[in-house]
Amino acid sequence: MTNQTWVLRQRPVGDIKDTDLELVESPLGELADGSVRVKTIYLSLDPTNRIWMSDADAYLPPVGIGEGMRGGSIGVVTQSNHLLIQAGAIVNTGLSQWALYNDIPGDMVNVLPDIPGLPLTAFMGPLGATGMTAYFGLTDIGKPQAGETLVVSAAAGAVGSMVGQIGKIHGCRVVGIAGSDDKCQWLTETAGFDAAINYKRENVAEALDRHCPDGIDINFENVGGEIMDAVIARLNDFSRMPLCGLISSYNDTEATPGPYNFANLLMRRTLLKGFIILDYLDRFPEGMQAMAAWLAEGKIHYETDIVEGLENAPSSLERLFSGKNLGKLVVRVSQEP
Amino acid sequence: MTNQTWVLRQRPVGDIKDTDLELVESPLGELADGSVRVKTIYLSLDPTNRIWMSDADAYLPPVGIGEGMRGGSIGVVTQSNHLLIQAGAIVNTGLSQWALYNDIPGDMVNVLPDIPGLPLTAFMGPLGATGMTAYFGLTDIGKPQAGETLVVSAAAGAVGSMVGQIGKIHGCRVVGIAGSDDKCQWLTETAGFDAAINYKRENVAEALDRHCPDGIDINFENVGGEIMDAVIARLNDFSRMPLCGLISSYNDTEATPGPYNFANLLMRRTLLKGFIILDYLDRFPEGMQAMAAWLAEGKIHYETDIVEGLENAPSSLERLFSGKNLGKLVVRVSQEP
Repeated sequence: MTNQTWVLRQRPVGDIKDTDLELVESPLGELADGSVRVKTIYLSLDPTNRIWMSDADAYLPPVGIGEGMRGGSIGVVTQSNHLLIQAGAIVNTGLSQWALYNDIPGDMVNVLPDIPGLPLTAFMGPLGATGMTAYFGLTDIGKPQAGETLVVSAAAGAVGSMVGQIGKIHGCRVVGIAGSDDKCQWLTETAGFDAAINYKRENVAEALDRHCPDGIDINFENVGGEIMDAVIARLNDFSRMPLCGLISSYNDTEATPGPYNFANLLMRRTLLKGFIILDYLDRFPEGMQAMAAWLAEGKIHYETDIVEGLENAPSSLERLFSGKNLGKLVVRVSQEP
Repeated sequence: MTNQTWVLRQRPVGDIKDTDLELVESPLGELADGSVRVKTIYLSLDPTNRIWMSDADAYLPPVGIGEGMRGGSIGVVTQSNHLLIQAGAIVNTGLSQWALYNDIPGDMVNVLPDIPGLPLTAFMGPLGATGMTAYFGLTDIGKPQAGETLVVSAAAGAVGSMVGQIGKIHGCRVVGIAGSDDKCQWLTETAGFDAAINYKRENVAEALDRHCPDGIDINFENVGGEIMDAVIARLNDFSRMPLCGLISSYNDTEATPGPYNFANLLMRRTLLKGFIILDYLDRFPEGMQAMAAWLAEGKIHYETDIVEGLENAPSSLERLFSGKNLGKLVVRVSQEP
C-alpha cells in the first residue's frame, strides 16, 4: 500500500510557490501497537497552515523542511491496533499530515458520533476547530451582551461566519466585513448578520460609522492591517478584542506595523487577548454541545467550500488569502464511506 | 482675594510652548453652599496632563481653550460651606485646576488622615493616584505570581517605581527600564529591583535577553515605541500586559505605528488591557490600605521631585517627557501648614 504526503521542501517567501511543497509517494509500513491507520476524507485548509510553514516564532514549532505538512483532517479508520477503536470508525485526527493515510496513536483521535441529518462536513465547520475557535473566542474573551455591537472581519470565513451567528444568538448587533458582494449577501440574508461591508468596494471606516451608530463593543479580529485600524478607532469604553488571526500579514516579507490606533486600546480601556484554539481543548465538549444544540435549532448556517483531490491542497490554500472561499475550506481527499 | 490659574490658550503642537498656557489672575467670588475653598499645597504633574491639552479622542474630554488647566492636587481648606469638612483640613481634590485656590463641592474632596511619620507627599505618590495606578494595574491586570518576570518601563517614574516594588512583594523577578544611570542605581540599590536597563546607553533588546533569561510574563507598559516592541518580542505564553501609558507618543504630531511585534500578542496568547485609574475609584480604600501597610513595613520606597512655584508648572511638565524626574513630580504651590 502506498501513501501520498505533501512534504515541505522550502519555507515560502511571501505567497506559496509550486516548489515549496512536494507530493511524495512512500510505502505504508507496519501499524504500531495502539495506533490506528486513518484514510483521509476531508483535509482542513486554514490560515494558520501558512504560519506553520514559516520559521517565525509562533505558537507551535514550524513544520521541518523535509517533513510532512501539518493539518487537521477527518478520516475513516482502515486498520486499528487500538482496543477501543474499530475499523470503519469515522475520526477527527486533530493535527496530522497532509496525506492520504495517517498512522496515529488511537488515544489522539476522536471518534465522531453518527448523528442523523448532520453531514460529516459539520465536524470540519461548526463542530470542528473553526467552530470551537469562534465559540470560545467570542464567549470567553468577547463576552457578548445583548444590545452590544459586534464587528467581525473575514466574516464569511469558517470562523467569522460562526462568530457572527453566535453573536446574534447572544442578542448582539452584528456587522461583518468580507471581500465580495456575494459574501455580504450570504451574511445578511442567510447568516442573519445585521449588516455586511464589502471592504474591496466600500470605504470601511465610513461604512462602520453608518452600521455601528453606537460604536463597537467587541472586535473579533481575524485580519489585521487597515481594517483592524478602522475598527479599533471606533471601539467603545471597556470593549473587548479577541485576537484570533492577522491573515493580512501572514504572507508579508517585511515587518508589519501594528495598529496606528494602538493608543485607543488605552483610551477605551479595551481588553485584547490573543488566543489559539489549542488552549481550549479541554473545553471542547462544552463548545460542541452548545453548537450542536444551535445547529439542531436551525440557528447556525454554514457553508463548506470543497476542493477535490489531495494534489490540489497547496494551490487551494491560496483561496483563503485572496478571499475566494465562502465558509470552511476543505480538500476532499477520498469519498465518504 | 485673588486667585491665580493656568489657562489653556491654544492646543500644543508637539512640545508645550510658552504661549500655550497663560497664568491668569482673577478675584475669588462667593463660595457656594456645600463647597470648600482649597488652597493648593502640592500640584501633581502627570503625563496624562499632556493628553488633556490635546483634542484627540481620549478618556476624558479635553480641557477647553480658555479654561483652567486640569490637574490633581492636595491642599488645605481655607473656608468651608460643607457641614462635615472643617477649615484647616488637608484634602485631596481629585481633579481640580492648576490654580492657587480651587472651589470644590465638599462631596468631591477626600480629607486626608494625619498619620505620624507619613509625609504629606506620600499622598501624591504611593497613596495617591500614581500609587493606585501601579497597585491596580499590576494586581488586577498583571496578576503577578511568585517566580514570574515583570518588566516595567519608565521604571523610575511615579507609577513605574511603585509597580516594580509591588512586583517584588509578590515574589517576581523585576527588571526596570529607565533613562539614566542614577535612576538605574536607585532602582536596584534603593527600590530593590533585580536589574535596571538604561535605555539611553544600552541596547534594550540585548539587555532584556540578559536580564530576563526565562522570558517576560508581565509587561507593565508606560512608554510605547521601540522599547515596547523589544519587550513584546520577549513575552511568554499567557503573558499579561497592563497598558497604562504611551508617553513616547504623546507629543507626536504624526500617526504613530503600533508595535511591529503586534502578532506576538496572538502567538503568545497575551492579555493586554488598557486602563485608567478613574476606573478603580471605588476600590481606592483597598489599594490605599495595602500600600499603607507596605509603607509601614518599609517595603515601599519613593521619591518626590518637587518644583517650587505655581508659575513653573507648565515648564516643569517637560521633565516627565525628557525623563528628568525621579519619582513623583509635583509643584509646591504653597507651604504645608
